[in-house]
Amino acid sequence: MKHVQDTLPPYVKIENGELWLTEDDRENLKISYRIKDIIFSEPSEFQHVMILDSYDFGRMLVLDGVVQTTSIDGHIYNEMISHIPLQLHPAAKKVLIIGGGDCGAAREAAKYPHLEEIHMVEIDEKVVQACKAHLQEVSGNLSDPRVKFIYDDGVAFVKEHENEYDVIIIDSSDPVGPAEALFSRDFYANVRRALKDDGLMVCQSQSPIFHLDILRRTYNNIGELFPHVKVYTATVPTYPGGLWSFTIGSTKPLALPEKATIPADTKYVNEGILKQCFELPQFLKTALEK
Amino acid sequence: MKHVQDTLPPYVKIENGELWLTEDDRENLKISYRIKDIIFSEPSEFQHVMILDSYDFGRMLVLDGVVQTTSIDGHIYNEMISHIPLQLHPAAKKVLIIGGGDCGAAREAAKYPHLEEIHMVEIDEKVVQACKAHLQEVSGNLSDPRVKFIYDDGVAFVKEHENEYDVIIIDSSDPVGPAEALFSRDFYANVRRALKDDGLMVCQSQSPIFHLDILRRTYNNIGELFPHVKVYTATVPTYPGGLWSFTIGSTKPLALPEKATIPADTKYVNEGILKQCFELPQFLKTALEK
Repeated sequence: MKHVQDTLPPYVKIENGELWLTEDDRENLKISYRIKDIIFSEPSEFQHVMILDSYDFGRMLVLDGVVQTTSIDGHIYNEMISHIPLQLHPAAKKVLIIGGGDCGAAREAAKYPHLEEIHMVEIDEKVVQACKAHLQEVSGNLSDPRVKFIYDDGVAFVKEHENEYDVIIIDSSDPVGPAEALFSRDFYANVRRALKDDGLMVCQSQSPIFHLDILRRTYNNIGELFPHVKVYTATVPTYPGGLWSFTIGSTKPLALPEKATIPADTKYVNEGILKQCFELPQFLKTALEK
Repeated sequence: MKHVQDTLPPYVKIENGELWLTEDDRENLKISYRIKDIIFSEPSEFQHVMILDSYDFGRMLVLDGVVQTTSIDGHIYNEMISHIPLQLHPAAKKVLIIGGGDCGAAREAAKYPHLEEIHMVEIDEKVVQACKAHLQEVSGNLSDPRVKFIYDDGVAFVKEHENEYDVIIIDSSDPVGPAEALFSRDFYANVRRALKDDGLMVCQSQSPIFHLDILRRTYNNIGELFPHVKVYTATVPTYPGGLWSFTIGSTKPLALPEKATIPADTKYVNEGILKQCFELPQFLKTALEK
């Protein structure tokens, strides 16, 4: 494989004859991944979409130069954002996923035979196509007939739906660019309206270490709109700081099922993780109690 | 602050007029920290010791160019390696810490008034002096009279002690350079001999993501020497992959105390964390069962 800098996509640089992706979204911390090959690289209407094959993390989805998910650890995030809410609402039939273009959350949800419809609203079709074609470790080349792909703006979509979904999963990228509106109070209010009376929502709510302000704002917004709100965490190695947070809003009290029904082939989630993920480090408990 | 490359310690580079530390201990993943100032930089008999002031993590202890602990997250590691074993052995009186030059583990142990003696055996006095002088967010400038500093090789030290300690904490750096022998089966056998009949040991056992081989070997070695062995995890943001493992070996069955007695001022550990840290992700449970 021979590359010259002029023919490379932005974000990928040649250093000492090796290809490196350096995330440049942070001022004071740079993470650089050595790359074997560029599998896919195209600008979409919304962002620059790449699938890169890296040495340490296998294939990775990279949007505007920032790693979103990888073959090595994508399952951690996707299992945590789907199985936890679906275990808390074992009677769910109709699920909405907003974002989640890597298809991993929809793939996990589709492991529950009792679900009847899984709607996936992703703004960027190119992300879905790239992941289905080139990142099957995450997407599983998802083709379950219950999964309906809708290429639309999630913010506009939820406004038009009322009392329809049992579970809404907000699987957004960081709150800059296309995903910014998915962190607003107005959006969560519309999500609540789109849920059935006994429904619940979950969103990824960023790093408790580096973005505690965003997590607290999200927790407070959801807490004002839903009578029950809870934060849980997992360790996602390719996200800065490792520790990642998810926030659940629910109309009903949140309780673990007496008997967990986690699909047999998970790699991260199990019955112990289902319980332990709600036990927060002291600094985070204190920050959320304020 | 003006710097020219020639006067800088190794590992710190000037890029576009800014100071950056780039960890170079991994081939395919580079993490670079933007640095405000170099507080301390001297070679010791064993390694190159630096205290750097970074933008995102505050002051950091850096050995041979690799970040060991930081003001921002040093407490997570130090609380987890000390409070978990001390909660599991609430009657402990005499504790040995091997390594732990940043003084953080000894500082946490010293929060238990019932401990009578805390021996800290660190090979490199320069690390202790640098951390006590320049990294007080981690070291607390520890000066508790029960803490005895012994500058010696931990491997040789444990050979000379028998049936003496209630708890031994092995707070080593990575298994390259001075710490390599602290991961060997012979060393753990001597640790067992240095423990009282009802004693227990804990060691840091590396990343379950990037060094699963080391964790499994450690788990198997300790499991052959002690009738009871358990792994627990925590998320330490500045360690690669975030997820970090600790392994406990005990002569008695391991059971959480009915009433936890965690000191009031912890930032990470609380009663929930004490329970949840033993609930392992499925891939790790499977790997350890093999």
